[in-house]
Amino acid sequence: MAGFAGGKLASGVTLAGGLGMIGGVANMEDVAGELEIAVAGLEGTALAAAGMLPVGVGFLLFITRLDEVVPLVKRYRPAVVWLFAAAALEDYAGWTRALREASPGSSIWIQLGGVAAALQVATTARPDVLCLQGADAGGHGFEKGASIVSLLPEASDALAAAGFTDIPLVASGGIADGRGVAAALALGAQGVVMGTRFLASREVKVHPVYQAAVLEATDGGQVTTRSRLFDQLRGPSIWPELYDGRGLVAQSHADFSNGVSLEEIQRLHNEEAAGEGQGFKTGLQGRAAIWAGTGVGLVKEVESAKDIVEKIRAEARDILLRVSKL
Amino acid sequence: MAGFAGGKLASGVTLAGGLGMIGGVANMEDVAGELEIAVAGLEGTALAAAGMLPVGVGFLLFITRLDEVVPLVKRYRPAVVWLFAAAALEDYAGWTRALREASPGSSIWIQLGGVAAALQVATTARPDVLCLQGADAGGHGFEKGASIVSLLPEASDALAAAGFTDIPLVASGGIADGRGVAAALALGAQGVVMGTRFLASREVKVHPVYQAAVLEATDGGQVTTRSRLFDQLRGPSIWPELYDGRGLVAQSHADFSNGVSLEEIQRLHNEEAAGEGQGFKTGLQGRAAIWAGTGVGLVKEVESAKDIVEKIRAEARDILLRVSKL
Repeated sequence: MAGFAGGKLASGVTLAGGLGMIGGVANMEDVAGELEIAVAGLEGTALAAAGMLPVGVGFLLFITRLDEVVPLVKRYRPAVVWLFAAAALEDYAGWTRALREASPGSSIWIQLGGVAAALQVATTARPDVLCLQGADAGGHGFEKGASIVSLLPEASDALAAAGFTDIPLVASGGIADGRGVAAALALGAQGVVMGTRFLASREVKVHPVYQAAVLEATDGGQVTTRSRLFDQLRGPSIWPELYDGRGLVAQSHADFSNGVSLEEIQRLHNEEAAGEGQGFKTGLQGRAAIWAGTGVGLVKEVESAKDIVEKIRAEARDILLRVSKL
Repeated sequence: MAGFAGGKLASGVTLAGGLGMIGGVANMEDVAGELEIAVAGLEGTALAAAGMLPVGVGFLLFITRLDEVVPLVKRYRPAVVWLFAAAALEDYAGWTRALREASPGSSIWIQLGGVAAALQVATTARPDVLCLQGADAGGHGFEKGASIVSLLPEASDALAAAGFTDIPLVASGGIADGRGVAAALALGAQGVVMGTRFLASREVKVHPVYQAAVLEATDGGQVTTRSRLFDQLRGPSIWPELYDGRGLVAQSHADFSNGVSLEEIQRLHNEEAAGEGQGFKTGLQGRAAIWAGTGVGLVKEVESAKDIVEKIRAEARDILLRVSKL
């Protein structure tokens, strides 16, 4: 949720009993600004007094300089530092070491999309938590992979067999309500991450037309697709080979499927993106990328972070109680 | 599991308290042969006395003639007739009507991969059960779609809102153990279908090298892929546009990714497929398609259908009890 999940959403989720996350962007001044907003949002609450900042902050390794991140993490001591999108799996070990030194109390979470990758990173970086991202996830993720349905159990078994029984697993991808949370817990996750659901939160930083398109979308597996095109709309993609992203099958992608040249798609995109609507439109008519996971069809109304967290938690609890009696 | 799930596997699953399925093939004499094997497998048991044959039988609509299916269903009265792979959604209504007339006690199950498709078929065909197939599924499925993580909840809500609260939902795709079953129930399914898991059953009809490749495969989301290529190995694909299939990323697919021409891939495939190994090899070296879902990494040993069903059921029950206490 880089650019979307700021300090306001993060503190809102944390205040509701979740763990709010600030999505990582390349500019550290922007990250610091959002961290300040989170600090302000938590001020005066019991949570603020604990010595750590009870939110997480994400970094995309391939566009972020570790030497810029270290002082920031040292200063704010976020409860979680979330690492994602390294150009190579080897990069996580150095980051983890440096961040632990900078802020020993911060928990290091690393997000991966496969079993072998999880094993390798568990061995080399020893993160505090592994986040396993399934193929249903919106926004950026691993071009190739399973959904959490088989990813979680297989990774969980493989990690246990290798002796990593102490690394909790967190699931992401396709989860947008209590049913998804309950399923993830049954699959072996100890927590879940939700992105798409919070695109319809009051605290999210999003263009109103973007949000309207998310609310309108139905049939999440049909209305979204994974594609590298979304990263090429403005020009050449800067993302490493491993990654693509899931978004709504809007006009740019329809053109792409119909064989329109990339140059023409970019020209039309940049023309529309320069306008007030920034290229966002409802009815799958937009030219700008609208990132969303397959859970988008479950997102029907804008609510506060508090209401979302509390409702989903209660729903998950009810479902697990009900199905345990089957 | 066309060609793999015969009467022996079907009766084995049913005897263990599941509902065994015979995979649909185009030749009705072959289907009748497998139905006879199921009848024999159930002979003398209490299940055989109920007036219906307590197994399901699947048909792939695009290659099967309804007028050949009707007498077969009339004669064997299978508990379930499973319909899949119609060239157009409109076709299900006529099939359902004719099959209900032929065998009023048979339950008609239709397998779909999207919310709108499920709604349309619920309205036009009114099946007894809808099977929602997620993108993790092995073998043939819908080229486009979500995993069951979001597909089940969204379809369930949409069907309920349209008044179809009485159609049970069954989930398939990526489920290979009790964790997957527990997750599917949490997501709103009333049952699950497993294919890949039974490739490693004692009763399955499978080449030993094919089965060895399934047992060996790990990292199910990385080692499998969806592709139309698997249907083109012998010659032009006969499958309708809507469908592709998930299989192991074996040599033919590696060649395809490396730009080898389809003609050359087919030539190499047909050469190997003519040999004793039928083109199957372990180590992702085979040229023939080895269909498998992302759950393949969870399939570690060959067991009897009875052991598989009983173990998975107990595991699902334990998991749901445990997580309900979280």
